[in-house]
Amino acid sequence: MHAVALPGIPEVRPGDDLAALLATAGARLDPSLGAADVLVVAHKVVSKAEGRVRALVDIEPSPRAQQLAAEHGKDPRHVQAVLDESAELVRADRGRLISRTRHGFVCANAGVDQSNTGAEGVVVLLPEDPDASARALRAALGVGAVVISDSWGRPWRVGQVEVAIGAAGLRVLVDHRGHPDRDGRPMAASVIAVADEAAAAADLVRKKASGEPAVRIRGLEQLLIEGAGQDAAVLIRAPEDDLFR
Amino acid sequence: MHAVALPGIPEVRPGDDLAALLATAGARLDPSLGAADVLVVAHKVVSKAEGRVRALVDIEPSPRAQQLAAEHGKDPRHVQAVLDESAELVRADRGRLISRTRHGFVCANAGVDQSNTGAEGVVVLLPEDPDASARALRAALGVGAVVISDSWGRPWRVGQVEVAIGAAGLRVLVDHRGHPDRDGRPMAASVIAVADEAAAAADLVRKKASGEPAVRIRGLEQLLIEGAGQDAAVLIRAPEDDLFR
Repeated sequence: MHAVALPGIPEVRPGDDLAALLATAGARLDPSLGAADVLVVAHKVVSKAEGRVRALVDIEPSPRAQQLAAEHGKDPRHVQAVLDESAELVRADRGRLISRTRHGFVCANAGVDQSNTGAEGVVVLLPEDPDASARALRAALGVGAVVISDSWGRPWRVGQVEVAIGAAGLRVLVDHRGHPDRDGRPMAASVIAVADEAAAAADLVRKKASGEPAVRIRGLEQLLIEGAGQDAAVLIRAPEDDLFR
Repeated sequence: MHAVALPGIPEVRPGDDLAALLATAGARLDPSLGAADVLVVAHKVVSKAEGRVRALVDIEPSPRAQQLAAEHGKDPRHVQAVLDESAELVRADRGRLISRTRHGFVCANAGVDQSNTGAEGVVVLLPEDPDASARALRAALGVGAVVISDSWGRPWRVGQVEVAIGAAGLRVLVDHRGHPDRDGRPMAASVIAVADEAAAAADLVRKKASGEPAVRIRGLEQLLIEGAGQDAAVLIRAPEDDLFR
């Protein structure tokens, strides 16, 4: 497996043709982007291109947003943006807001981000439908698979890791259950979230602050699927199946 | 970044010299293992070499283990092994036991595993001190860093990903907080668990059922540290700082 960041992607702005920017950057790789590649794209550039940004100055915080902001030391307009993206506030504690987004993702601040937004006073939201965004990029770029990623914290573990919030062309989950292990016993509980692992691998080669939102991974042909592949939405655990709500 | 599995590692048994087995396999790579490499090793071979295995036939389940086993459809001797490795049972629900291990890890079955154990009726425990195991392997092999990994499920997400439970020679957490983002704003909440991401990256190139417990990653020189580096124990979130207990 080989992973390399696409070079020279400029700041992305609402309405930009992200596929064209990625294609131009991908053509600078040797060999250039192709049908055997998995392309991992940080959601922020996808969201920006899709216009999923809000200016804080345009946001009128509700009384609930004002109260949460006061309790947690946050900007009430940012909190309002979080609430607008949330189906449910799962936890609000010690300055942290953990939401279930309208997609079903459970993550901090419903994915509403204030860093690397491209402008002062602007927040970036998650894409409306990250799997659809992945499918569109895959079709436009002719790559084997596209993963759209975000950096998330985890319960019980310090630090963030990159996870897959959108995917196309990939086996998102690989199910080893029932396959014999080395001893010939069926393997238990071995469903691997390879899309999340691909997102994490890509993160190791990106420079966060210097405009490297996309990483090409080669050597994962065994994870590619003809057709659309699995949606990253399959990674969302059903609330009734979750022990930690 | 380039990742490749070490070829031809035989079944590891208690008392085996794991470093020698890894060195032999690593010498078959071209170039062979060296000081710029991060070597990710699945904990199971570490545990086996260290004798961290138990025969179920030797385990006498307590009444509590028998009761939990009956409630959750498990082998009471396996449950007893889980309890013996646990500082606390965090959740027991619908056939799943989530423990805090004596190391502080929160994971299913306290890491006690029944697949790929090398023999019928044997369970494999986590290493006693995975960071010490990583330090010993790093010293013996002369590699830049060693990560010892395990496959864990996650709340809210379907599927397992590989995480770091031991490390030596690596920047386990990379802290971008306070660094300027592309717009010159300090980045918020950007502490990246790169050891977990390296474990996840390695998992993409291992064949689970066919004896590929170790993966060499090149191209992560920026994450190497002279001296021991950080322990993977820094990834353990303090219980009082955790919203999900």
